Amino acid sequence: MAFSPLVDQLLETLRVLPGVGPKTAQRMALHLLERDRDGGRRLVASLGEALEQVGYCQRCRTLTETPLCTICEDARRDEGLLCVVESPADMLAIEQAGGYRGHYFVLHGHLSPLDGIGPEDIGLDQLDERLANGAIEELILATNPTVEGEATAHYIAEQLRGTGVRLSRLAYGVPMGGELEYVDGGTLSRAFNGRLPFAQESS
Amino acid sequence: MAFSPLVDQLLETLRVLPGVGPKTAQRMALHLLERDRDGGRRLVASLGEALEQVGYCQRCRTLTETPLCTICEDARRDEGLLCVVESPADMLAIEQAGGYRGHYFVLHGHLSPLDGIGPEDIGLDQLDERLANGAIEELILATNPTVEGEATAHYIAEQLRGTGVRLSRLAYGVPMGGELEYVDGGTLSRAFNGRLPFAQESS
Repeated sequence: MAFSPLVDQLLETLRVLPGVGPKTAQRMALHLLERDRDGGRRLVASLGEALEQVGYCQRCRTLTETPLCTICEDARRDEGLLCVVESPADMLAIEQAGGYRGHYFVLHGHLSPLDGIGPEDIGLDQLDERLANGAIEELILATNPTVEGEATAHYIAEQLRGTGVRLSRLAYGVPMGGELEYVDGGTLSRAFNGRLPFAQESS
Repeated sequence: MAFSPLVDQLLETLRVLPGVGPKTAQRMALHLLERDRDGGRRLVASLGEALEQVGYCQRCRTLTETPLCTICEDARRDEGLLCVVESPADMLAIEQAGGYRGHYFVLHGHLSPLDGIGPEDIGLDQLDERLANGAIEELILATNPTVEGEATAHYIAEQLRGTGVRLSRLAYGVPMGGELEYVDGGTLSRAFNGRLPFAQESS
Protein backbone atom coordinates (compact mmCIF):
# COMPACT_ATOMS: atom_id res chain seq x y z
CA MET A 1 0.00 0.00 0.00
CA ALA A 2 1.06 3.54 -0.54
CA PHE A 3 -1.62 6.21 -0.96
CA SER A 4 -4.72 6.07 -3.14
CA PRO A 5 -4.34 5.37 -6.90
CA LEU A 6 -4.51 9.05 -7.92
CA VAL A 7 -1.93 10.11 -5.34
CA ASP A 8 0.34 7.19 -6.30
CA GLN A 9 0.04 8.24 -9.94
CA LEU A 10 0.97 11.81 -8.99
CA LEU A 11 4.03 10.54 -7.08
CA GLU A 12 5.04 8.69 -10.23
CA THR A 13 4.48 11.55 -12.69
CA LEU A 14 6.23 14.15 -10.50
CA ARG A 15 9.37 12.15 -11.21
CA VAL A 16 9.43 13.42 -14.81
CA LEU A 17 10.94 16.55 -13.22
CA PRO A 18 14.75 16.42 -13.29
CA GLY A 19 16.34 15.68 -9.93
CA VAL A 20 13.09 14.49 -8.31
CA GLY A 21 13.25 11.05 -6.68
CA PRO A 22 10.60 9.14 -4.68
CA LYS A 23 11.09 11.06 -1.42
CA THR A 24 11.05 14.50 -3.06
CA ALA A 25 8.01 13.53 -5.14
CA GLN A 26 6.20 12.56 -1.95
CA ARG A 27 7.11 15.82 -0.27
CA MET A 28 5.94 17.80 -3.32
CA ALA A 29 2.67 15.89 -3.69
CA LEU A 30 1.77 16.19 0.01
CA HIS A 31 2.72 19.85 0.04
CA LEU A 32 0.48 20.62 -2.93
CA LEU A 33 -2.44 18.48 -1.75
CA GLU A 34 -2.31 19.45 1.91
CA ARG A 35 -1.08 22.99 1.98
CA ASP A 36 -1.14 24.67 -1.42
CA ARG A 37 -3.89 23.48 -3.76
CA ASP A 38 -4.17 26.96 -5.25
CA GLY A 39 -0.48 26.94 -6.06
CA GLY A 40 -0.90 23.49 -7.57
CA ARG A 41 -3.75 24.73 -9.77
CA ARG A 42 -1.65 27.67 -10.92
CA LEU A 43 1.13 25.23 -11.79
CA VAL A 44 -1.27 23.02 -13.77
CA ALA A 45 -2.60 26.03 -15.70
CA SER A 46 0.80 27.58 -16.35
CA LEU A 47 2.54 24.33 -17.33
CA GLY A 48 -0.37 23.30 -19.55
CA GLU A 49 -0.39 26.67 -21.29
CA ALA A 50 3.39 26.67 -21.77
CA LEU A 51 3.42 23.12 -23.15
CA GLU A 52 0.70 23.93 -25.67
CA GLN A 53 1.84 27.36 -26.77
CA VAL A 54 5.58 27.68 -26.36
CA GLY A 55 7.43 26.81 -29.53
CA TYR A 56 10.63 28.03 -31.12
CA CYS A 57 11.52 31.48 -32.45
CA GLN A 58 11.56 31.29 -36.26
CA ARG A 59 14.75 33.26 -36.38
CA CYS A 60 16.94 32.20 -33.43
CA ARG A 61 15.19 28.98 -32.35
CA THR A 62 14.94 29.93 -28.68
CA LEU A 63 11.81 29.08 -26.68
CA THR A 64 8.97 31.54 -27.20
CA GLU A 65 5.21 31.53 -27.74
CA THR A 66 5.38 34.28 -30.38
CA PRO A 67 6.73 33.78 -33.92
CA LEU A 68 9.79 35.88 -33.05
CA CYS A 69 11.33 36.18 -29.59
CA THR A 70 11.81 39.51 -27.81
CA ILE A 71 15.51 39.65 -28.70
CA CYS A 72 14.95 39.00 -32.41
CA GLU A 73 12.27 41.70 -32.44
CA ASP A 74 14.45 44.22 -30.62
CA ALA A 75 15.54 46.77 -33.27
CA ARG A 76 18.20 48.22 -30.97
CA ARG A 77 20.31 45.06 -31.06
CA ASP A 78 23.31 44.76 -33.35
CA GLU A 79 22.30 42.87 -36.52
CA GLY A 80 25.94 42.24 -37.41
CA LEU A 81 26.69 40.05 -34.36
CA LEU A 82 25.42 36.50 -33.98
CA CYS A 83 26.21 34.28 -31.02
CA VAL A 84 25.72 30.51 -31.42
CA VAL A 85 24.77 28.71 -28.18
CA GLU A 86 23.74 25.16 -27.37
CA SER A 87 20.64 25.91 -25.30
CA PRO A 88 18.22 28.65 -24.26
CA ALA A 89 19.74 28.42 -20.76
CA ASP A 90 23.16 29.42 -22.19
CA MET A 91 21.50 32.35 -23.95
CA LEU A 92 19.89 33.43 -20.69
CA ALA A 93 23.22 33.17 -18.84
CA ILE A 94 24.88 35.46 -21.43
CA GLU A 95 21.96 37.93 -21.23
CA GLN A 96 22.14 37.97 -17.45
CA ALA A 97 25.90 38.60 -17.56
CA GLY A 98 25.06 41.68 -19.65
CA GLY A 99 27.23 43.48 -22.17
CA TYR A 100 26.40 41.52 -25.30
CA ARG A 101 24.06 43.44 -27.64
CA GLY A 102 23.94 41.18 -30.69
CA HIS A 103 21.63 38.34 -31.66
CA TYR A 104 21.61 34.63 -30.89
CA PHE A 105 21.19 31.32 -32.61
CA VAL A 106 20.22 28.31 -30.47
CA LEU A 107 21.36 24.85 -31.61
CA HIS A 108 19.36 22.86 -29.01
CA GLY A 109 22.24 20.44 -28.59
CA HIS A 110 25.52 19.66 -30.28
CA LEU A 111 26.73 17.39 -33.05
CA SER A 112 26.84 13.81 -31.86
CA PRO A 113 27.15 11.32 -34.74
CA LEU A 114 27.01 8.34 -32.36
CA ASP A 115 23.56 9.45 -31.17
CA GLY A 116 22.51 10.16 -34.75
CA ILE A 117 22.53 13.93 -34.25
CA GLY A 118 23.75 15.53 -37.48
CA PRO A 119 23.98 19.12 -38.77
CA GLU A 120 20.27 19.40 -39.69
CA ASP A 121 19.20 18.27 -36.20
CA ILE A 122 20.91 21.27 -34.64
CA GLY A 123 19.59 23.67 -37.29
CA LEU A 124 22.84 24.31 -39.17
CA ASP A 125 20.94 24.55 -42.49
CA GLN A 126 18.90 27.39 -40.96
CA LEU A 127 22.11 29.01 -39.69
CA ASP A 128 23.54 28.87 -43.24
CA GLU A 129 20.43 30.62 -44.59
CA ARG A 130 20.74 33.27 -41.92
CA LEU A 131 24.38 33.90 -42.83
CA ALA A 132 23.63 33.85 -46.58
CA ASN A 133 21.88 37.23 -46.54
CA GLY A 134 25.20 38.85 -45.60
CA ALA A 135 24.15 41.04 -42.67
CA ILE A 136 26.18 39.06 -40.15
CA GLU A 137 29.74 40.34 -39.72
CA GLU A 138 30.88 38.27 -36.78
CA LEU A 139 29.79 34.84 -35.62
CA ILE A 140 30.64 34.06 -31.97
CA LEU A 141 30.84 30.32 -31.36
CA ALA A 142 29.70 30.03 -27.74
CA THR A 143 29.14 26.28 -27.60
CA ASN A 144 30.16 24.57 -24.35
CA PRO A 145 33.88 23.95 -23.77
CA THR A 146 33.31 20.18 -23.89
CA VAL A 147 34.51 17.68 -26.48
CA GLU A 148 31.15 17.76 -28.30
CA GLY A 149 30.80 21.54 -28.04
CA GLU A 150 34.32 22.03 -29.43
CA ALA A 151 33.66 19.59 -32.26
CA THR A 152 30.44 21.43 -33.13
CA ALA A 153 32.25 24.78 -33.14
CA HIS A 154 34.98 23.37 -35.40
CA TYR A 155 32.42 21.90 -37.77
CA ILE A 156 30.60 25.24 -38.09
CA ALA A 157 33.91 27.08 -38.58
CA GLU A 158 34.90 24.60 -41.29
CA GLN A 159 31.61 25.12 -43.13
CA LEU A 160 32.04 28.89 -43.11
CA ARG A 161 35.65 28.96 -44.31
CA GLY A 162 35.95 31.48 -47.14
CA THR A 163 32.57 33.15 -46.63
CA GLY A 164 34.14 36.29 -45.15
CA VAL A 165 32.22 36.05 -41.88
CA ARG A 166 34.54 36.79 -38.94
CA LEU A 167 34.53 33.86 -36.53
CA SER A 168 35.30 34.04 -32.84
CA ARG A 169 35.18 31.79 -29.81
CA LEU A 170 34.68 32.73 -26.15
CA ALA A 171 37.97 33.18 -24.28
CA TYR A 172 39.11 30.18 -22.25
CA GLY A 173 40.97 30.50 -19.02
CA VAL A 174 40.83 30.73 -15.27
CA PRO A 175 37.35 31.71 -14.00
CA MET A 176 37.09 35.09 -12.29
CA GLY A 177 37.04 35.02 -8.50
CA GLY A 178 38.37 31.47 -8.36
CA GLU A 179 41.53 30.23 -6.72
CA LEU A 180 44.27 28.74 -8.89
CA GLU A 181 44.68 25.89 -6.41
CA TYR A 182 41.23 24.57 -7.28
CA VAL A 183 41.28 25.12 -11.06
CA ASP A 184 41.49 21.86 -13.02
CA GLY A 185 44.62 21.04 -15.02
CA GLY A 186 43.00 21.32 -18.44
CA THR A 187 41.78 24.84 -17.79
CA LEU A 188 45.08 25.88 -16.25
CA SER A 189 47.22 24.66 -19.16
CA ARG A 190 44.81 26.34 -21.57
CA ALA A 191 45.15 29.59 -19.60
CA PHE A 192 48.94 29.27 -19.79
CA ASN A 193 48.98 28.65 -23.53
CA GLY A 194 46.62 31.53 -24.11
CA ARG A 195 48.44 34.00 -21.85
CA LEU A 196 48.32 37.65 -22.88
CA PRO A 197 50.77 40.53 -22.48
CA PHE A 198 50.12 42.30 -19.17
CA ALA A 199 47.59 45.19 -19.25
CA GLN A 200 46.17 43.85 -22.49
CA GLU A 201 44.07 41.06 -21.01
CA SER A 202 40.95 43.19 -20.75
CA SER A 203 41.27 44.93 -24.10
CA MET B 1 14.89 40.03 -20.24
CA ALA B 2 14.51 36.41 -19.33
CA PHE B 3 12.47 34.13 -21.58
CA SER B 4 9.06 34.80 -23.10
CA PRO B 5 6.13 35.72 -20.80
CA LEU B 6 4.71 32.17 -20.70
CA VAL B 7 8.08 30.61 -19.88
CA ASP B 8 8.76 33.27 -17.24
CA GLN B 9 5.38 32.57 -15.70
CA LEU B 10 6.19 28.85 -15.65
CA LEU B 11 9.52 29.57 -13.91
CA GLU B 12 7.57 31.50 -11.30
CA THR B 13 4.82 28.92 -10.74
CA LEU B 14 7.25 25.97 -10.54
CA ARG B 15 8.47 27.60 -7.35
CA VAL B 16 5.28 26.59 -5.54
CA LEU B 17 7.00 23.19 -5.29
CA PRO B 18 8.87 22.84 -1.98
CA GLY B 19 12.64 23.11 -2.30
CA VAL B 20 12.54 24.60 -5.80
CA GLY B 21 14.45 27.87 -6.27
CA PRO B 22 15.05 29.94 -9.42
CA LYS B 23 17.85 27.74 -10.83
CA THR B 24 15.99 24.47 -10.26
CA ALA B 25 12.80 25.96 -11.72
CA GLN B 26 14.74 26.93 -14.84
CA ARG B 27 16.22 23.46 -15.17
CA MET B 28 12.78 21.88 -14.73
CA ALA B 29 11.06 24.21 -17.20
CA LEU B 30 13.72 23.76 -19.90
CA HIS B 31 13.76 20.01 -19.37
CA LEU B 32 9.99 19.74 -19.80
CA LEU B 33 9.81 22.15 -22.76
CA GLU B 34 12.87 20.90 -24.60
CA ARG B 35 13.08 17.22 -23.84
CA ASP B 36 9.95 15.83 -22.27
CA ARG B 37 6.73 17.52 -23.33
CA ASP B 38 4.87 14.22 -23.06
CA GLY B 39 6.04 13.83 -19.49
CA GLY B 40 4.97 17.40 -18.82
CA ARG B 41 1.50 16.72 -20.21
CA ARG B 42 1.21 13.61 -18.04
CA LEU B 43 2.18 15.74 -15.04
CA VAL B 44 -0.45 18.38 -15.92
CA ALA B 45 -3.15 15.69 -16.27
CA SER B 46 -2.18 13.79 -13.15
CA LEU B 47 -1.74 16.85 -10.93
CA GLY B 48 -4.97 18.40 -12.21
CA GLU B 49 -6.89 15.20 -11.56
CA ALA B 50 -5.40 14.75 -8.09
CA LEU B 51 -6.11 18.36 -7.10
CA GLU B 52 -9.73 18.08 -8.20
CA GLN B 53 -10.53 14.62 -6.90
CA VAL B 54 -8.35 13.80 -3.93
CA GLY B 55 -10.02 14.65 -0.65
CA TYR B 56 -9.93 13.15 2.80
CA CYS B 57 -11.04 9.72 4.00
CA GLN B 58 -14.26 10.16 6.00
CA ARG B 59 -13.01 7.82 8.65
CA CYS B 60 -9.27 8.37 9.10
CA ARG B 61 -8.82 11.70 7.27
CA THR B 62 -5.90 10.54 5.11
CA LEU B 63 -5.67 11.64 1.46
CA THR B 64 -7.86 9.60 -0.89
CA GLU B 65 -10.20 10.14 -3.81
CA THR B 66 -12.72 7.58 -2.51
CA PRO B 67 -15.01 8.16 0.50
CA LEU B 68 -12.99 5.62 2.51
CA CYS B 69 -9.28 4.89 2.03
CA THR B 70 -7.95 1.40 1.28
CA ILE B 71 -6.86 0.86 4.89
CA CYS B 72 -10.24 1.84 6.36
CA GLU B 73 -11.95 -0.50 3.88
CA ASP B 74 -9.63 -3.40 4.64
CA ALA B 75 -11.67 -5.86 6.72
CA ARG B 76 -8.54 -7.80 7.72
CA ARG B 77 -7.15 -4.95 9.79
CA ASP B 78 -7.56 -4.87 13.56
CA GLU B 79 -10.54 -2.65 14.46
CA GLY B 80 -9.39 -2.44 18.07
CA LEU B 81 -6.14 -0.58 17.33
CA LEU B 82 -6.01 3.08 16.31
CA CYS B 83 -2.80 4.96 15.63
CA VAL B 84 -2.93 8.79 15.69
CA VAL B 85 -0.41 10.46 13.35
CA GLU B 86 0.22 14.05 12.33
CA SER B 87 0.34 13.57 8.56
CA PRO B 88 -0.33 11.09 5.74
CA ALA B 89 3.46 10.88 5.27
CA ASP B 90 3.82 9.55 8.84
CA MET B 91 1.12 6.98 8.11
CA LEU B 92 2.98 5.90 4.99
CA ALA B 93 6.26 5.60 6.91
CA ILE B 94 4.59 3.30 9.48
CA GLU B 95 2.99 1.22 6.71
CA GLN B 96 6.31 0.89 4.92
CA ALA B 97 8.03 -0.20 8.15
CA GLY B 98 5.44 -2.99 8.26
CA GLY B 99 4.15 -4.89 11.27
CA TYR B 100 1.28 -2.63 12.31
CA ARG B 101 -2.12 -4.06 11.35
CA GLY B 102 -4.51 -1.61 12.98
CA HIS B 103 -6.16 1.57 11.73
CA TYR B 104 -5.04 5.19 11.60
CA PHE B 105 -6.31 8.64 12.36
CA VAL B 106 -4.60 11.60 10.66
CA LEU B 107 -4.57 14.94 12.48
CA HIS B 108 -3.09 16.99 9.58
CA GLY B 109 -1.01 18.99 12.01
CA HIS B 110 -0.70 19.47 15.74
CA LEU B 111 -2.19 21.75 18.36
CA SER B 112 -0.67 25.20 18.13
CA PRO B 113 -2.66 27.82 20.05
CA LEU B 114 -0.31 30.62 18.95
CA ASP B 115 -1.18 29.87 15.30
CA GLY B 116 -4.86 29.55 16.18
CA ILE B 117 -4.90 25.77 15.66
CA GLY B 118 -7.24 24.26 18.22
CA PRO B 119 -8.68 20.78 18.83
CA GLU B 120 -11.36 21.03 16.09
CA ASP B 121 -8.78 22.06 13.49
CA ILE B 122 -6.95 18.77 13.92
CA GLY B 123 -10.19 16.74 13.97
CA LEU B 124 -10.24 15.81 17.65
CA ASP B 125 -14.06 16.03 17.70
CA GLN B 126 -14.12 13.40 14.96
CA LEU B 127 -11.62 11.29 16.96
CA ASP B 128 -13.92 11.48 19.99
CA GLU B 129 -16.87 10.24 17.90
CA ARG B 130 -14.76 7.41 16.61
CA LEU B 131 -13.79 6.38 20.13
CA ALA B 132 -17.36 6.76 21.41
CA ASN B 133 -18.62 3.66 19.64
CA GLY B 134 -16.38 1.57 21.87
CA ALA B 135 -14.66 -0.67 19.33
CA ILE B 136 -11.23 0.87 19.93
CA GLU B 137 -9.24 -0.88 22.65
CA GLU B 138 -5.89 0.82 22.27
CA LEU B 139 -5.01 4.27 21.00
CA ILE B 140 -1.38 4.68 19.92
CA LEU B 141 -0.29 8.32 20.05
CA ALA B 142 2.29 8.50 17.25
CA THR B 143 2.58 12.27 16.98
CA ASN B 144 6.08 13.61 16.30
CA PRO B 145 8.52 13.70 19.25
CA THR B 146 8.60 17.52 19.10
CA VAL B 147 7.29 20.01 21.63
CA GLU B 148 4.05 20.49 19.67
CA GLY B 149 3.63 16.78 18.96
CA GLU B 150 4.13 15.93 22.64
CA ALA B 151 1.68 18.63 23.72
CA THR B 152 -0.90 17.27 21.26
CA ALA B 153 -0.42 13.72 22.58
CA HIS B 154 -0.81 14.93 26.17
CA TYR B 155 -3.94 16.88 25.29
CA ILE B 156 -5.54 13.82 23.67
CA ALA B 157 -4.51 11.63 26.62
CA GLU B 158 -6.04 14.14 29.02
CA GLN B 159 -9.34 14.16 27.12
CA LEU B 160 -9.56 10.37 27.19
CA ARG B 161 -8.78 9.94 30.88
CA GLY B 162 -11.34 7.60 32.41
CA THR B 163 -12.85 6.34 29.13
CA GLY B 164 -11.19 2.94 29.49
CA VAL B 165 -9.32 3.20 26.20
CA ARG B 166 -5.73 1.97 26.62
CA LEU B 167 -3.30 4.71 25.57
CA SER B 168 0.22 4.18 24.33
CA ARG B 169 3.03 6.21 22.84
CA LEU B 170 5.81 5.09 20.49
CA ALA B 171 9.00 4.11 22.34
CA TYR B 172 11.65 6.81 22.51
CA GLY B 173 15.33 6.07 22.45
CA VAL B 174 18.45 5.60 20.43
CA PRO B 175 17.69 4.95 16.72
CA MET B 176 18.63 1.53 15.38
CA GLY B 177 21.89 1.39 13.43
CA GLY B 178 23.08 4.72 14.80
CA GLU B 179 26.21 5.44 16.81
CA LEU B 180 25.86 6.71 20.37
CA GLU B 181 28.56 9.31 19.70
CA TYR B 182 26.28 11.11 17.26
CA VAL B 183 22.98 10.82 19.13
CA ASP B 184 21.77 14.15 20.57
CA GLY B 185 21.68 14.69 24.30
CA GLY B 186 17.89 14.86 24.61
CA THR B 187 17.45 11.48 22.96
CA LEU B 188 20.28 9.94 24.97
CA SER B 189 18.96 11.08 28.36
CA ARG B 190 15.49 9.89 27.37
CA ALA B 191 16.97 6.50 26.43
CA PHE B 192 18.72 6.37 29.83
CA ASN B 193 15.61 7.23 31.78
CA GLY B 194 13.58 4.70 29.81
CA ARG B 195 16.13 1.88 30.07
CA LEU B 196 14.72 -1.64 30.20
CA PRO B 197 15.90 -4.86 31.89
CA PHE B 198 18.21 -6.72 29.49
CA ALA B 199 16.55 -9.22 27.10
CA GLN B 200 13.23 -7.52 27.64
CA GLU B 201 13.76 -4.59 25.30
CA SER B 202 12.15 -6.31 22.33
CA SER B 203 9.19 -7.79 24.21
